[in-house]
Amino acid sequence: MTTQATGDIVTAGFVVIGDEILSGRTKDKNIGYLAEFLTAIGVDLSEVRIVPDVEERIVEAVNALRARYTYVFTSGGIGPTHDDITADAIGKAFGVPVDHDPRAVEILTAFYPKGQLTEARLRMARIPQGADLIENAVSKAPGFRIGNVHVMAGVPAVMQAMLDAIGPTLKTGLKMHSTAIDADVPESRIAAALGAIQDAHPGVMIGSYPRSNDGRFSTQIVVRSRDIAAMNAAADAIRTAVADQIST
Amino acid sequence: MTTQATGDIVTAGFVVIGDEILSGRTKDKNIGYLAEFLTAIGVDLSEVRIVPDVEERIVEAVNALRARYTYVFTSGGIGPTHDDITADAIGKAFGVPVDHDPRAVEILTAFYPKGQLTEARLRMARIPQGADLIENAVSKAPGFRIGNVHVMAGVPAVMQAMLDAIGPTLKTGLKMHSTAIDADVPESRIAAALGAIQDAHPGVMIGSYPRSNDGRFSTQIVVRSRDIAAMNAAADAIRTAVADQIST
Repeated sequence: MTTQATGDIVTAGFVVIGDEILSGRTKDKNIGYLAEFLTAIGVDLSEVRIVPDVEERIVEAVNALRARYTYVFTSGGIGPTHDDITADAIGKAFGVPVDHDPRAVEILTAFYPKGQLTEARLRMARIPQGADLIENAVSKAPGFRIGNVHVMAGVPAVMQAMLDAIGPTLKTGLKMHSTAIDADVPESRIAAALGAIQDAHPGVMIGSYPRSNDGRFSTQIVVRSRDIAAMNAAADAIRTAVADQIST
Repeated sequence: MTTQATGDIVTAGFVVIGDEILSGRTKDKNIGYLAEFLTAIGVDLSEVRIVPDVEERIVEAVNALRARYTYVFTSGGIGPTHDDITADAIGKAFGVPVDHDPRAVEILTAFYPKGQLTEARLRMARIPQGADLIENAVSKAPGFRIGNVHVMAGVPAVMQAMLDAIGPTLKTGLKMHSTAIDADVPESRIAAALGAIQDAHPGVMIGSYPRSNDGRFSTQIVVRSRDIAAMNAAADAIRTAVADQIST
């Protein structure tokens, strides 16, 4: 993928629109996918909000995040049914009308057999004025981009296809590198050493993630930095500290 | 579980504190679990925010959600390491000091072998003033509740144990019931019927969730209501509409 890499820090927010996630009936798969996708191309996912299928809640979340981050992504609510209200919410957030978009109508007309482009299906061509379409290689009905906001489908396969179409258009920043060290000790045994190493390596972020497996606690330590040499130096110091702890 | 059921609607917000979720390195398992747990006891999860391990971001999210919902839950950042900053962030959100809590110190003193309650481990006894402790049956270091905010660990097994301790203390509301209908048609073929059924059944919420499996699209339709009879009536109407659609 060719992206427009810059030396800046590029940030993103993600709004997941979905009653079904908040009720627990559907387990989200899009957050982890988008997080990995953005990290890989040098965009920092900085915040995620999951909101219900309620127009004012979508408007509020999108407006909060688009003012704060380089990019916003949304997933969900752009299908043909009565509960698909994302296009209208985005129109309201940007203060623009939403209507059948000739480019989207053309895509749907070409896709459905003659006579089968029903009124419900035509709903999927309703796009806020001034938006660009986002290609949907899976099921054709497009997403759209308006301002810095990218509106995608909620079905994981479709969201992923739309993300592939969006990727090359994004400005990307200095990539965040990371490396993980698995330490077979509870984190409380290496906490003091990690704190000291963090103080000595201000250019990296050291995260410590306890894990439990059948009552046995271990720790994954993750070192992140935009500077690979700084990351490796801190990781070496951590490996030494962990080895010292295990041998004592 | 005995909860204090009321006829009111009880709502909740969830703040997930975790750089590791935002980077994509760790896939969240707590949102789906909490969502199912709360739905089962009659609490509506109304919003989720995932924020990084940055104090002001935690403070902002917790303050926004605790003003808006009956309850707030947080996960992550209460361990012994330098990156565990949740207790301090909650203290700041409530404007109260954070210090070693004698009840928490006692729990940790009883748990660790003599001489092994290190300074790092004692960090886990730092609790905002005025908070109640939340029992941790898995690894002892407690969570805490202050005002309407419940602060839990991020390790799923520990969060789940803390939730079991919290459950009986929660006021719960009228339960939201739901039923799902799997329809072997793309949602655009039943969209018009669903819209009409939604209009005719204002006391229920009808959600339509497209699914794709190897390029074949089907739909799960979910009917939710606090009124079981209303839910069943709408579900029957949907089953009839789906059958009509499949037979034509």
